[in-house]
Formats: sequence, structure tokens, C-alpha cells
Amino acid sequence: MSRYLGFLSYLGTAYSGYQIQNGQITIQGVLEDRLSVLLKEDIKTKGSSRTDSGVHALSNAFHFDFEGDIPKALLKRMNALLPEDISFLGLHKVSDDLHARFSATERSYVYKVYCGKNPFYNGRAYRLLGFIPDVEKMNVAAELLVKYEDFVCFSKANSGVKTTLCDIKYAKWDSVNESEFYFNIRANRFLRGMVRGVVGSLLKVGKGVSSLDDFERMICAKKPYTADFSAPAEGLYLEKVIYKGINETL
Amino acid sequence: MSRYLGFLSYLGTAYSGYQIQNGQITIQGVLEDRLSVLLKEDIKTKGSSRTDSGVHALSNAFHFDFEGDIPKALLKRMNALLPEDISFLGLHKVSDDLHARFSATERSYVYKVYCGKNPFYNGRAYRLLGFIPDVEKMNVAAELLVKYEDFVCFSKANSGVKTTLCDIKYAKWDSVNESEFYFNIRANRFLRGMVRGVVGSLLKVGKGVSSLDDFERMICAKKPYTADFSAPAEGLYLEKVIYKGINETL
Repeated sequence: MSRYLGFLSYLGTAYSGYQIQNGQITIQGVLEDRLSVLLKEDIKTKGSSRTDSGVHALSNAFHFDFEGDIPKALLKRMNALLPEDISFLGLHKVSDDLHARFSATERSYVYKVYCGKNPFYNGRAYRLLGFIPDVEKMNVAAELLVKYEDFVCFSKANSGVKTTLCDIKYAKWDSVNESEFYFNIRANRFLRGMVRGVVGSLLKVGKGVSSLDDFERMICAKKPYTADFSAPAEGLYLEKVIYKGINETL
Repeated sequence: MSRYLGFLSYLGTAYSGYQIQNGQITIQGVLEDRLSVLLKEDIKTKGSSRTDSGVHALSNAFHFDFEGDIPKALLKRMNALLPEDISFLGLHKVSDDLHARFSATERSYVYKVYCGKNPFYNGRAYRLLGFIPDVEKMNVAAELLVKYEDFVCFSKANSGVKTTLCDIKYAKWDSVNESEFYFNIRANRFLRGMVRGVVGSLLKVGKGVSSLDDFERMICAKKPYTADFSAPAEGLYLEKVIYKGINETL
């Protein structure tokens, strides 16, 4: 039996999130279905990051175990079988103890917001109504994220999670132009709902309805559900999942 | 009676092109319908560029005549009424003799191609199968476009067109990364089907199935329908239409 680590890119719009669910069309469901057809046995995968309904991924990872030989043309054949909104990026043979979720050393997300109607961003970014965020102020708040460790306030639910500590290595807003802004965040791990909570709360600072002090107090209070989770799924992109020794460029 | 010049942005995927047609959903049809509702009279517009079915526009222009007062909130109200894939960018009061089509001094297009499956480009760029184009070679060919004047070879149909002369001011491919390439072209005017003919023919050079000599011979032969029109609508974006004295940034 060998273990394989695979990478996928997808537009999340048409899916009820990554994780398999009965009666719902999910990324994992479609993936396992196509893999099982091509490898001629029932393939079960473990995902790295359970992106929510409507969330996109530039690259998400999963692993599975398989006894036989992987066909050389698997990548090409998977992409022919998978729908247009899911792309199979690559497959690595890895050691048996590598786990797509637990072995990941780092994950990065991008969150895209824009002001003003834009047909090309519809469903692919979050449209801010009635204000242009103060990026400088949001970046002062974002720097606090790198300083702190316990992020229970940005967590929607932590059932089964042993710790709410996350090592945030990078958190910064960039202006693409005067009406488009991208937030990049990188950490060893994220809690459930965390990135959307971070973005919603930072946008409150950028709108001027929360102060920097409010933001810091929220983190220090260490209570769950206190963040603003209003940032919708359509603006969120899982960018990359990093594993030690696995070349990230496929 | 006053004349107004308006600008629109749209994702062309869901529409049977720009120009109004009976029984088809077109950009112009939707535009006139919403303008007529808001201005409370039957508004007829003249478009600058009749983009084909599935072609997108970052900014396309149109004009119309109207006697009454334009409501101050027209922009906002139009964007509330228009579907998510069409955005009303702005409106200028102009002189009575300005014509959206004939007064335009310059138009620019972008054509996007990519190699490899990409869920985010689906319907928004042309996927090249089985080859990565030689951008350097395509740019040598593109330089010839700026040198010549008569482009009948890139024209699909010219009924009613008095001349096939176009003053191409700029034509160049740029690599976004190793698998995405954008072609930018700017001219005083374009013939019908011309940009797709130019792109299809340049890609043949980039693939190595046409030589630079073949490309130049095709231009010099001055025969219609000789270009390769296989470049699909979904990769094409009308970028901008320029008018003298009208500020392009709205």
C-alpha cells in the first residue's frame, strides 16, 4: 500500500463546500468519484482543509492510500473527467505517515474585496457597499495578528479542537487599485471560520466602526464567536498548503 | 434634446452579443430596457462596438438622445436594475454630433489565452491544448501588424464597410506567467471578426504551424477570410473606447 498526496484547484461557487456530505455536491465527493473510476477501486481521501460552501481554492491538498500502479496519464485523465470548475494539479508519492491535514506546516489564504459593481468579480470577491476601507488602518490591526497567539475569538466552532493557538506568520492588505483590495494571511493552522472572522473584523476597523483598541480587546478577551463573521465565502481563496519536503510548484 | 454618451462593463457569457436582436437576450436589449424604465420613455441607443456573443467588455460605449432631466442617481439606480454581469460605468453629456461608433478615435482589446486546466479562466479565456505558444515569435509577427494598413485578410464580412484600412497603433503579447498570455491590440478601428482573426493567426505562428513569412504573405495577399478565426469569443475583452475630449476615467 502506498500513500499519495494530491493537489486540486477549484471554483467553489457550485459546490456545498469541500467535505463529503450525503445528498450534496461537494469537491471531495466529485474527486473520490472520478479517482475511483480511474483507479478502478473505491478510493477514500482525507482533505487538508475543509473549505466552506462557495469558498475557492487555488490549491488544496488531500491524501489517499492505493495498492496498485498509478497510471501515467492519471493527471490528464482526471482533468478530462473532472468538471471545468475543478482542476487536478498533481500527485506525489509520499511516506505512509504523511497526513494531508496534520502534516501541513503552513496554509495561506487570500481574501478579495472590491468597491463598485464589477461583473468580473461577481461570485469571486466580496463587494463592499457604501465605503472604501482604510487599508493603512487595517494593516495596523493586521500586525496585531502576528503578535498574538490565541485566536479563539475568530473561531466559530472548535468542537474537537485541542488548542486555539495559531502561529500567524503574515497578515497584510494590499491595494490592487483604488477599488480592489486583497488580504493575504499565512499561518501554521487556522481555526474553523477563522479567516472570514479575521476579514470581517478587520473590515470593521477599515470602515471606522471598530477602533484598533476594540480589535485588540477582542483578541485579548479570548472568547469564541466575538469576531464579525459577515465576510462571505465568495471572497475567500485557499491559496496554498505547504508540506515539508514536497515541492510546492507542481 | 441632449445627447449622452454612456459606458458599460459586462461579462458576455450569458448574452447573444451586444447588438439588439429579436428573441435574443443581448447587452443592448437589457440596457435599453432598464434605461427606458428609469427615464420613463422609450430609449434607443447606438453602440460603439458590436461585440459578438460571449465576448466581454471592460468598457464599451453607447449614445442616446433625451429631452428631460437625467436623474442624479441614475448611475446607482441603473446598477441596481441591471443584472450582476452588467455594470453601468458612467454617463457624459456630449455635443449633438458625437456618435458612439463613428466619433471613437481609438479602441483597444485584450485577448487572454492559457495552457493547462484552470477553473478560474473557464469561459473567460481561451485554453490552448497541447502547446505553449512561442511568445517571442508571435511578437515579431505582431510588429508586422503595426507596419501594414490594409487588413482585409482578418475580416470575416465587410458588407457596408467602405474601407479595410486600419491604423494599428499597438499589438503585443505579454506573459502573465509561464502558462498565461495576454495579447493587447489598439487601433483607430477594427473590422468585423478582426481581433479573433489576428489572434487565431498569431497563435498559428506561436504554435509553429505558420511561419512569419506565411503570416506576412497572408496580409499582403489582401483577400478576406484568409485568417484563422478559431480564437473563441470567451478569450476576447473590449478594453476601452476613446473619444476626444472625454475623460476616459469615469
